[in-house]
Amino acid sequence: MSDKVTVLVAGSWGTALACVLADNGFRVSLWTRSDEQANEINEHHTNRKYLPEAVLPANITATPSLAEAMQDTQAVLIVAPSKAMREVCRQLKPFYHEDMLCVHATKGFETESLKRMSTVISEELGAKESNIVVLSGPSHAEEVVKRMPTTVVVASRNERAAAAAQTLFMNEEYFRVYTNLDMIGVELAGALKNIIALGAGMSDGLGYGDNAKAALLTRGIAEMVRVGSEMGANPLTFAGLAGIGDLMVTGTSRHSRNWRAGYMLGQGKSLDEVMDSMNMVVEGIRTTQAAHDMSRKYDVQMPIAEQLYRVLFEKSDPREAVEALMGRDPKNEMESMKLEIWQQWHS
Amino acid sequence: MSDKVTVLVAGSWGTALACVLADNGFRVSLWTRSDEQANEINEHHTNRKYLPEAVLPANITATPSLAEAMQDTQAVLIVAPSKAMREVCRQLKPFYHEDMLCVHATKGFETESLKRMSTVISEELGAKESNIVVLSGPSHAEEVVKRMPTTVVVASRNERAAAAAQTLFMNEEYFRVYTNLDMIGVELAGALKNIIALGAGMSDGLGYGDNAKAALLTRGIAEMVRVGSEMGANPLTFAGLAGIGDLMVTGTSRHSRNWRAGYMLGQGKSLDEVMDSMNMVVEGIRTTQAAHDMSRKYDVQMPIAEQLYRVLFEKSDPREAVEALMGRDPKNEMESMKLEIWQQWHS
Repeated sequence: MSDKVTVLVAGSWGTALACVLADNGFRVSLWTRSDEQANEINEHHTNRKYLPEAVLPANITATPSLAEAMQDTQAVLIVAPSKAMREVCRQLKPFYHEDMLCVHATKGFETESLKRMSTVISEELGAKESNIVVLSGPSHAEEVVKRMPTTVVVASRNERAAAAAQTLFMNEEYFRVYTNLDMIGVELAGALKNIIALGAGMSDGLGYGDNAKAALLTRGIAEMVRVGSEMGANPLTFAGLAGIGDLMVTGTSRHSRNWRAGYMLGQGKSLDEVMDSMNMVVEGIRTTQAAHDMSRKYDVQMPIAEQLYRVLFEKSDPREAVEALMGRDPKNEMESMKLEIWQQWHS
Repeated sequence: MSDKVTVLVAGSWGTALACVLADNGFRVSLWTRSDEQANEINEHHTNRKYLPEAVLPANITATPSLAEAMQDTQAVLIVAPSKAMREVCRQLKPFYHEDMLCVHATKGFETESLKRMSTVISEELGAKESNIVVLSGPSHAEEVVKRMPTTVVVASRNERAAAAAQTLFMNEEYFRVYTNLDMIGVELAGALKNIIALGAGMSDGLGYGDNAKAALLTRGIAEMVRVGSEMGANPLTFAGLAGIGDLMVTGTSRHSRNWRAGYMLGQGKSLDEVMDSMNMVVEGIRTTQAAHDMSRKYDVQMPIAEQLYRVLFEKSDPREAVEALMGRDPKNEMESMKLEIWQQWHS
């Protein structure tokens, strides 16, 4: 078996995970969008646009040729923006065979179809679902490239695939990997938490305090559990690393793009201004759009996503949105959760 | 019925909740430990030692006489440090009658007996358990006195008592109150989360990042659910305001005394140095002691509390404690939670 792993594409999280694989002794081939980026990585071992301070291990080689990147590889890691996932998979298809392990670490949905990333991958690559794994959890790329202690979860319907992904990424030094068999829950949690993080940033940007933000994050977890239960996820997944864990990091940290985008909205910036000022994709914005459509399609209430949708796409006032959220809770805090958990565990 | 509510004692949280009651139109009698503090509150409407920036409403009157404070009152709110709860109740006893509503907002256990605060209150006051309510949730006193939006939960075994407490504290402007019938869960969550917040502060003080802290907080929730299930709490309570909500505020905010104490420990300060530098009680330190004894008495694993106990009381190295925690998780993230939830919901 080859010791080569291919990573596409070379954004901040893709590059950080490439570093983990390289630290673990794999030869990593990192697919770039341009010759310039490949040259920078190969000659200077840096990727300044996405990770200004990182020095990449020498066993990472970059190439703009997907054929070269995929040659003789044992596994592929896809970290494309959700918007680009289908197109990236189409390009990957000629070089992929169905027995190859395919891990993705993208947190979002396909906006038009409302499909999860593993569904898009499966459709385009013709990959066996049992060979698809999602990697998620509380993990700023900036900390991972500094080798700071990090834990993530890898989920697949197939225990062996999850275990194989665990073997690729886990190390004793700083990167701890748990397995989970609830791929739907992990994908939903990773995507939906970006909406809540946007909302938390907006609350901060409006000048509300920690008390208000905690209430919003708590409601956010309840909303994720409710939607997740509808869509076939295990509610307990939302209590784990991909849910609460990731939300705690994303919703309370200035490192988070989603939090930052929300913060700027709270301070009165328009969506266009926010998008212009960001160097990177803010998945939470697209996910809010998807959640808005989802809540109609599946007839499930998503009040936080709904209020954010109005702010993002219908020019609603952020203050009114947060106040609407603070005001519409049921009076008994268990009401919104109990039923679904019962349904889940008694079915 | 009288419109008077008595609050003891005049620390930061007691004073902040007195402000809420006063804003809601009640005459509030605030019991102080000294003439000086009573004079300051009555003459200057400030309580500088505990809430330096707050201006108290004029319908708060302070007195060092408990007899005067309790005269003609309809309800009593006790916010004493857990260590002082039994003694405060003994002093209160002559002025209390068993039909009076008794709300407490203390987050901790009695260290020696491992009893919850409502048990101590019930024993000392001879209060009917159906008249005891706990108030908890994500709520920095500093934000409450600035009238920043805050949500809390009031829990009692008796729905009517919880509803009565909701009526006392809830207002349209900034203070939202939910009810819950799981008093055990709300009391346990409020106490145990202080341990996790200490641990989160310690991780930050050691220079670990957001990724590590998120992992610790996620494990902390799982530990709280596990212990809570053993002790008769509803696991879902830990997913609500008193659990996740409060942990998000306490574990990620520099305003939190518990976080700050942990941070100083992480930076290499001794327990004595930490205690000396704090103006106020750090409940998490005493709670860690109680949890250590509890885990033996009830034979339940509490790895985070255990590691913190070693740092606090056996001079263990904080770095080794955090590393031990990062290293001892089960490999499948559901293992530690699934069983208890099943037991709870199928029993």
